[in-house]
Amino acid sequence: MEFAAFTASELVAYLDAIPKVHALLGEPDDLDVAEVGDGNLNYVYFVTNAKAPQRSVVVKQAPPFLRLVGKAWPLSCQRMEHEVAALRRFGALCPQHVPKVYHADSKRFLMVMQRLASHCILRQGLMNGMTYPKLAEHLSTYLAHTLFYGSDLFLAPDIKKQAVSAAVNIELCKITEDLVFTFPFEEHASNVYSPALPLSAIERLRTNEELRIAAGDMKWAFMNRAETLLHGDLHTGSIMVNEQETFVIDPEFAFYGPMGFDVGALLANLLLAYFSRDWHGRVDGGDPAAYEEWLLEQAIGIWKGFSEQFIALWRDHESRSERCLIGGHAKTGAVEGYRTHFMRRLLADTLGFAGCKMIRRIVGMAKVAEITRIPDARARACIEIRCLRCAEALLVERATLSDIEQVAMLAREMRRETLTHV
Amino acid sequence: MEFAAFTASELVAYLDAIPKVHALLGEPDDLDVAEVGDGNLNYVYFVTNAKAPQRSVVVKQAPPFLRLVGKAWPLSCQRMEHEVAALRRFGALCPQHVPKVYHADSKRFLMVMQRLASHCILRQGLMNGMTYPKLAEHLSTYLAHTLFYGSDLFLAPDIKKQAVSAAVNIELCKITEDLVFTFPFEEHASNVYSPALPLSAIERLRTNEELRIAAGDMKWAFMNRAETLLHGDLHTGSIMVNEQETFVIDPEFAFYGPMGFDVGALLANLLLAYFSRDWHGRVDGGDPAAYEEWLLEQAIGIWKGFSEQFIALWRDHESRSERCLIGGHAKTGAVEGYRTHFMRRLLADTLGFAGCKMIRRIVGMAKVAEITRIPDARARACIEIRCLRCAEALLVERATLSDIEQVAMLAREMRRETLTHV
Repeated sequence: MEFAAFTASELVAYLDAIPKVHALLGEPDDLDVAEVGDGNLNYVYFVTNAKAPQRSVVVKQAPPFLRLVGKAWPLSCQRMEHEVAALRRFGALCPQHVPKVYHADSKRFLMVMQRLASHCILRQGLMNGMTYPKLAEHLSTYLAHTLFYGSDLFLAPDIKKQAVSAAVNIELCKITEDLVFTFPFEEHASNVYSPALPLSAIERLRTNEELRIAAGDMKWAFMNRAETLLHGDLHTGSIMVNEQETFVIDPEFAFYGPMGFDVGALLANLLLAYFSRDWHGRVDGGDPAAYEEWLLEQAIGIWKGFSEQFIALWRDHESRSERCLIGGHAKTGAVEGYRTHFMRRLLADTLGFAGCKMIRRIVGMAKVAEITRIPDARARACIEIRCLRCAEALLVERATLSDIEQVAMLAREMRRETLTHV
Repeated sequence: MEFAAFTASELVAYLDAIPKVHALLGEPDDLDVAEVGDGNLNYVYFVTNAKAPQRSVVVKQAPPFLRLVGKAWPLSCQRMEHEVAALRRFGALCPQHVPKVYHADSKRFLMVMQRLASHCILRQGLMNGMTYPKLAEHLSTYLAHTLFYGSDLFLAPDIKKQAVSAAVNIELCKITEDLVFTFPFEEHASNVYSPALPLSAIERLRTNEELRIAAGDMKWAFMNRAETLLHGDLHTGSIMVNEQETFVIDPEFAFYGPMGFDVGALLANLLLAYFSRDWHGRVDGGDPAAYEEWLLEQAIGIWKGFSEQFIALWRDHESRSERCLIGGHAKTGAVEGYRTHFMRRLLADTLGFAGCKMIRRIVGMAKVAEITRIPDARARACIEIRCLRCAEALLVERATLSDIEQVAMLAREMRRETLTHV
């Protein structure tokens, strides 16, 4: 059957037939429908009771193709099942940061979920220069809980292995394998280069051996290391915020992969915001410096908070269970040493993945608004070069950058490249 | 239903009812049955036509428990399905080094396979001081083909991910996770220490932080890195040899894991043979030096041969497919650099796994005959200390030992510790 998106009246009729959703929304005649998808993958609707706007839900539906490209890029609709399963799992681990799923329909590839009406997309908030006092704390908590509880550090080995098989997500992993780890480093028709980006910067991504080897390592890690259930696409467009609350949405890319991938995606997107800030800041007429530092503080705070909470969860679990992953009881000296070593290696992975994620947002198909909305081509290219230089350093130096403060220093150094045309 | 091993006449009747096996063996009245299992996991029978001894098969049956321990350690019989699937897969990749499967019965958890009547178990051959001129060449070929063709370097990502799920082997992986990576490093009832092994050597395994961290890394890699379909238990007791042929048997531990695990298991067992050689060599009245060097040459030859063939398979595949894992075409400069880097990292993994495998054979439950058959307790302990020292160096220095020749030099150095009582 040919896929056809719902008309507004079809969607209202569909929702009205689900008692739980009817109870949330009220009478069908009162409902307004707005399609609000960002257009990359899915159709997304806000359905709201016009007489009581707090009665509102989100409906998300997966067409059998990549919406950004159209029917030429078919995708199975199973991604909605992955998203529902991941939302339920992450919601169980971290209910305060994951929207509730009210209804899921695996035949129509859709779900009905909590509307976050007083929240905005973090990427937009950052472009607007907003600060969120609890952001780092919330995101560290989300990362520590989701990454720890899905892993062999917590789960029994049989449960973990079953969870890995259940979360295999062939199609959406293929998108990441191609768009993040492969196409940006070769001549590929899907790459999009901004008009003033120098050819030398593009060439460097193809010819710099150290960079290519590092990116190859990250691709291999992404394809092989089933460490925990990841969100899989944790950029600032997958986070909704206000002053008080933070929610992580859209985990359709969820699969068992390397822990550093989610942390790295977040770090990458904070750095993209940081490097483009002086353009947005100056356009807004202000001094960008304070907000730039706030952005770096978020990156530092997220890593530190994540790292502390992750270790605390691990330590508590091993103390309670009286069994340590590496053998022996929790008071063995080597146990804490192993934890420190583990987090050090996880930071290296995080930086490597962050580097790949930044590069794909500069030269790949799917870009970020804080850069594409810069109309001044030379200013944009200057920012893009900063991002590429930083990404390369993160990839190549990931094993020697020993803490997140060093990463912030590196970013400040790359930032000194002034905008040539603002 | 209570499991009961076949009686000889029951087994003969069972085999006679399978036309293909009947054609191989001849009339049931002529058949002799001998139970020859080493007793760790399974029942193994040779069934031979007494009038024509070349007409012979092996029957292997999995009881629902670990045979070494008994019903107190239950195991599901699915391990026979893993073994059959792995034998068929490895046999398709490398038919000259994998025994043929004639018949598999998933209800009775048994299979009937090729009898290798003119071959002996490699471990026994090495204890007897036998040399095999084609051993290194054959085992390198086996390793290169099985490890390459199961990986993302060859398989399409969707096929690879399906293969990973199909090969999940929870129970037997748990045995390795416990017996190789955990119990040897803690006080555990299953550990067995030889009478003269000093307490300090045992304590060191529990308290040396660098060693514990390295072993923790290897356990994490074993549990998380689904790189290729492994044999999973590739010691010298899983290899049958004669002057002309080499066969790899018993892949019931097969699962998707890190490539270095199989290579490391083999290296570990060659090193155990090497370190115990002067005792066996002197008891036989000869000078052990020449055979010791032959053993090290096999270790060197296996790594070098494996590494060259693996790279050649990879290079050929990427040239033909005009697509490289890291992006771009095969003539990109970084592509060869990535291969070199990949093999360097694979050697480090190999050494780390070899270290863990050696340690478990010294202090763990399942030991190796070349060491347990040394009746002189002090000589045995001296050899065990050599093995433990070498294992520790392999683990801790795995990232800095840059080639296999260095590993051989390290082994020669550890070997200088003379036997105190022979």
